[in-house]
Amino acid sequence: MIYLDNAATTKPSVSAFERATEYVTEKFHNPSGMYNEGFALQGELKKARSVLLSKLADESAFELIFTSCGTESDNQAIFSFAKRGNAVTTEGEHSAVTAAVTELKNRGIIEARFAPLQKDGRVDVNALLAMVDEKTSFVSVMHVNNEIGAINDVNAIAKLVKQKNPRVIFHCDGVQAYGKIPYKLSKDVDLYAVSAHKIGGLKGVGALIKRKSLQLPPYIYGGGQEAGRRSGTENVFGIMQFRYAVEEKFSTLKTDYERLKGYREQLWGALDKEVYIRLSSEEGTPYILSVSARGLRGEILLHMANDKGLIVGTGSACSSNAKHRYSKVILACGYDEKTADGVLRLSFSPQTTEEEILQAAAILNEIGRDLAKKMK
Amino acid sequence: MIYLDNAATTKPSVSAFERATEYVTEKFHNPSGMYNEGFALQGELKKARSVLLSKLADESAFELIFTSCGTESDNQAIFSFAKRGNAVTTEGEHSAVTAAVTELKNRGIIEARFAPLQKDGRVDVNALLAMVDEKTSFVSVMHVNNEIGAINDVNAIAKLVKQKNPRVIFHCDGVQAYGKIPYKLSKDVDLYAVSAHKIGGLKGVGALIKRKSLQLPPYIYGGGQEAGRRSGTENVFGIMQFRYAVEEKFSTLKTDYERLKGYREQLWGALDKEVYIRLSSEEGTPYILSVSARGLRGEILLHMANDKGLIVGTGSACSSNAKHRYSKVILACGYDEKTADGVLRLSFSPQTTEEEILQAAAILNEIGRDLAKKMK
Repeated sequence: MIYLDNAATTKPSVSAFERATEYVTEKFHNPSGMYNEGFALQGELKKARSVLLSKLADESAFELIFTSCGTESDNQAIFSFAKRGNAVTTEGEHSAVTAAVTELKNRGIIEARFAPLQKDGRVDVNALLAMVDEKTSFVSVMHVNNEIGAINDVNAIAKLVKQKNPRVIFHCDGVQAYGKIPYKLSKDVDLYAVSAHKIGGLKGVGALIKRKSLQLPPYIYGGGQEAGRRSGTENVFGIMQFRYAVEEKFSTLKTDYERLKGYREQLWGALDKEVYIRLSSEEGTPYILSVSARGLRGEILLHMANDKGLIVGTGSACSSNAKHRYSKVILACGYDEKTADGVLRLSFSPQTTEEEILQAAAILNEIGRDLAKKMK
Repeated sequence: MIYLDNAATTKPSVSAFERATEYVTEKFHNPSGMYNEGFALQGELKKARSVLLSKLADESAFELIFTSCGTESDNQAIFSFAKRGNAVTTEGEHSAVTAAVTELKNRGIIEARFAPLQKDGRVDVNALLAMVDEKTSFVSVMHVNNEIGAINDVNAIAKLVKQKNPRVIFHCDGVQAYGKIPYKLSKDVDLYAVSAHKIGGLKGVGALIKRKSLQLPPYIYGGGQEAGRRSGTENVFGIMQFRYAVEEKFSTLKTDYERLKGYREQLWGALDKEVYIRLSSEEGTPYILSVSARGLRGEILLHMANDKGLIVGTGSACSSNAKHRYSKVILACGYDEKTADGVLRLSFSPQTTEEEILQAAAILNEIGRDLAKKMK
C-alpha cells in the first residue's frame, strides 16, 4: 500500500515507540505519586514539555500543557477565551475550531464571524481585520490548512489583529504545521495547538502552547495535573513517544521540507492535466497536494485508488462522519461544486519515497482516465 | 520494588500492549479515513466498545463513548447534566467530580450539595436522599472510594434517588470498580465513568458509559467522532490495548477478587497493631487497604518505605498536587487530623504476590516502629 493520507494521520515512529516502551514496562508509575518513581516521571514530563516547546517558541515566554489531542487543545483555547462580544475565525478552519465556535454562537455567548479565503486557501487578511472590532474577544487563524495546504502568516496576522485590538486573545491551530514548517511563535500569538499523530506520534496526545503571562483556565477539572490547567493522569507513554518523535521530526525538518516540495512538484508534473487541476499553491505546505478531477467524484476515485493499492484522502478525514457532500473549505476558496466534488488530497510524510510518488501518479492517471471514460 | 500503589495506576498489561502494537506498526490509519483501512478500524473500535460495555451492562440499553481518561468522563457527565437547581454528590468523591461540581457552583449555575460519609467511607444514604429534592438535576455517587476502598451500592442508591425524583440524572464514577468488582449496571444509573490505567490499560484512555436513551451532548467539539459525542481522532492503539487488558482482567475478576481479599486480610493480620489502625472495612474492595499510623506522618512513612523498596500511597495520587495536608475524605469518614495525617493506602493488583504482601508488612512494621521511636 502506498499511503498518501498523512495529513489525516501518520504512521507512528516505531523507534520513538520502542524508546518509550520503558514507560510501560518499567516506569509505569503515576507521576503524581509522592515517591521517587513519581518524582522522576514529573521530571521526565517537564523535560518532554521543554523539548516540544523549545522547537517552536522562546521557553521564557511560553509554556506547554499536554492534552489528549489537537481538538481538545483548540476547544480549551476557544471555550476559555471566546467569552464575550464576537469571535473572528476563518472559513478554512478545521472542525475542531468551527464546531466549538459555532457551539458558543448557538449558546448565545458570542457572535461568530468567519473571514473568507483567497483562492489559494489563505485567509483574506483584510477581510479578517475588517471583522475585528472593539467587541472582538478572540481570533483564531489556522497555521496550515489541512485540506488545501495553504500557509497563513500567523505571526503577521496576529500582529495586525493586536494593532487593531490589543485585548484580543489570538489562537492558532498549528496541527498541520508543527514539525513540518519552519516557524517560531511570535509574542502576538497567545495560544497554539499541536498534535502528536500528525508527525509520527500516537493518536491521543496533543498539547496547547500558551503565552506564560496568559491565565488559562482548565477545561477538564480534577486532580490538578498540568499545573491545574488539565486534570487527568498524564499519558506518560504517549507523551514520551511524542517527545522522541518530535526530536526525530525536527532534526530533519528542513531537509524533509525541501525534499517533499520536490516530490509534490514531481507528483503534480506526472499527473494527467486532462483529468486533474491543481488546487494547492506552490507556496503551500510541501506536505499536501490537493487536486481536483473536475467532473468526476473524488470519493469514487478514492475507492478505485484504494483497490489499486493507493490510499489518498478527499478532504479532512475528521469531518468524514458529518457526511457533507462538498468540502466547505474548497467552496470557500471560490471553487464550484463540480470542482469540490472531484477533490483528492495527496499528503506526504518524510517516509514517502520518490518511487511511491511516481507509482501514485500512474495509478491516479489510470483511474482518472477510466472513470472519465465511464462517465461519458 | 514492591508496588502497592495500584489504585493510583497499575502496570499496563504487557501482553495486551504487545497484541495492540499492530495498531501502531500496521493498522495506523485514521478511523475516519474513507478507505478500507479506515472502515476496518471503525469496525475494530465498534468491537472494542462492545467488549468493554458487555462486561458491565446490557448492550441493548447502554452504549459506550471513548474519552481520554476517567476525569474527562466525569467532567463530560457533570458539565452536560448538572445544569440547573442543585447537584448532589458525596464527600468521598474523587477530585474529578468534586472539582467539576465546585466549578459549576462557583459559576453560579448550580447549588452543590455534598452528602456525608459513614465511618467506613460509604455515603450516608439517608443523608444523601434528604438532599435530593425537586430542584435536583444531577446526582453523582462513586462506586468504589479510591482512598479507603468503600463500596457504595450504587444500583440501590440510584433507585432510591429516582424514586424521590425521577428526573434526576444519576452518574457514577466507576474508575476503581470497573474490572475489579463484580457488578452490572442497573437502568437507574444513567452514566458510568471508567478508566483504562487502573486495570492494566494505558494512561490516556477512558470511557463514559451511558443509557442509550439519554441524549449526551459533546464536551469536546470537532470532527464528530464517537457519534458526535467526543471529537478528536480516536486513540486506536490505546483503545485496543484497553480492550485486550479488559478481556484479561475480567477473565480472572472473581478469582482475583477472592485472592486479593485474602491478601488484604493477611497484610492486615501481619501489621503491628501498636503502630497501625485499620480504616478500610472488610466489606470494601479487596484492592485497597487503608491504614493509619496514628500520631506519625504518613508522608514520612511513605518515603521511608520507598527507601526500603516498597511503594505505597497516602491518599489519592491525583490530588497530590493540591498540597492538602489532610485527606478530606478521611476526615469526612469522621477520623481526626492525627489519624488522617498517618494514612497509608496499600493497594493491590492481580500481579501482587503473597511474598510481596509479607515483605511489605515487615517493612511497614519496621519503619513504623522506627519512626515512632524517633518521635518519642
